[in-house]
Amino acid sequence: MRRKEFSVTENQEIESFLAAMSFGFLGTVGEDGRPRVTPLNYVYEDGVFYFHGSRIGEKMEHLKSNPHVSFSVADEYAVIPSYFSDPSLACPATAYFKSVTASGRAEVVQDLEEKALAFSLLMKKLQPEGGYDPIEASNPAYTSRLRNVAVVKIVTDHISAKFKFGQNLTKDKREQVLCGLESRGLARDPETAELIRCSVPAKGERKKNKETSAAEEEY
Amino acid sequence: MRRKEFSVTENQEIESFLAAMSFGFLGTVGEDGRPRVTPLNYVYEDGVFYFHGSRIGEKMEHLKSNPHVSFSVADEYAVIPSYFSDPSLACPATAYFKSVTASGRAEVVQDLEEKALAFSLLMKKLQPEGGYDPIEASNPAYTSRLRNVAVVKIVTDHISAKFKFGQNLTKDKREQVLCGLESRGLARDPETAELIRCSVPAKGERKKNKETSAAEEEY
Repeated sequence: MRRKEFSVTENQEIESFLAAMSFGFLGTVGEDGRPRVTPLNYVYEDGVFYFHGSRIGEKMEHLKSNPHVSFSVADEYAVIPSYFSDPSLACPATAYFKSVTASGRAEVVQDLEEKALAFSLLMKKLQPEGGYDPIEASNPAYTSRLRNVAVVKIVTDHISAKFKFGQNLTKDKREQVLCGLESRGLARDPETAELIRCSVPAKGERKKNKETSAAEEEY
Repeated sequence: MRRKEFSVTENQEIESFLAAMSFGFLGTVGEDGRPRVTPLNYVYEDGVFYFHGSRIGEKMEHLKSNPHVSFSVADEYAVIPSYFSDPSLACPATAYFKSVTASGRAEVVQDLEEKALAFSLLMKKLQPEGGYDPIEASNPAYTSRLRNVAVVKIVTDHISAKFKFGQNLTKDKREQVLCGLESRGLARDPETAELIRCSVPAKGERKKNKETSAAEEEY
């Protein structure tokens, strides 16, 4: 990540975000050197992402030939129109978002107990209200199903997070964006405004507003 | 995509989805053969995705060494708890979603007129209400900014779409899911129910419900 002012390093914030989101995007590479991105439900626990799927198919072929993967989760809070802070130029148009991207090695889980654990964690996350028999490898209703499904874990070696909420703006511009959000009033605008207020402005606020343009930003 | 019953081939449906979503996930491969996934705002037009960003950084290095990319956009409509259709097993738990994944070649756009066109399309999509001077390479306020930003286009060679809304379920199970959504009443549940009703069930509905389990599904 080039722009350090958007970087988030607190594990607690990263883990809360990963626990709140339900799906992410897995990047794999095939034997032909071409990438593939696959959206997947996941659960994250102690530096490991688990996901599941069919035992056959292109994604699994990729993982067998090249275990290096990237996994990214992002949530867009607000599209910020240019006119919130500039009456004529389109450049300040941008989006405020949280994103977490991990790199690591994918391992196909073979052990039925670990498969059961992965599904238990996934269900606890996506169906916290319960309503099902505990997933145990010893339960005959689950055993063959666990055998017939692929569970993959990504053992991460690096996780970076970018939460972009106007940290690059001067105080004046930030106030203009806050005013704009307040008067627009979309469903997530109050939450976005709160995140702008809680975010730490970049040291030495940028002198030129052109430097804050969307044209120079990315997720 | 292995499961043909979720495949969508109508261009109109794919284009409407891509127009309604604001960001997707780019998969690139570095010189070391490792993938990277980057979330990005995009605009899609006539088989081409445009996105923008800094001219420097890892993503641009990847694109220069290997132009093959994957780009994926997904939206999750509903997490479907297992108990909507099964009183004891966790397996039917799943998510209903739309996803579109493209593969193609990335080209860095150098021509200022095409850069201006890409930004014009992006602004029209993300800020349809206007409120800015038209983005033209000949406008001095934009010229240097256009020069200083990277615009990349992905010329797609393949686009696949997967819209999963219970096409794999028997009529009885589908009714149970519809009932569950109606009684749960989350914000997007009515929209999800409508998409289930409009989706075409798989030919030869699956005889065994275990085959519809989440454990065998993926996005």
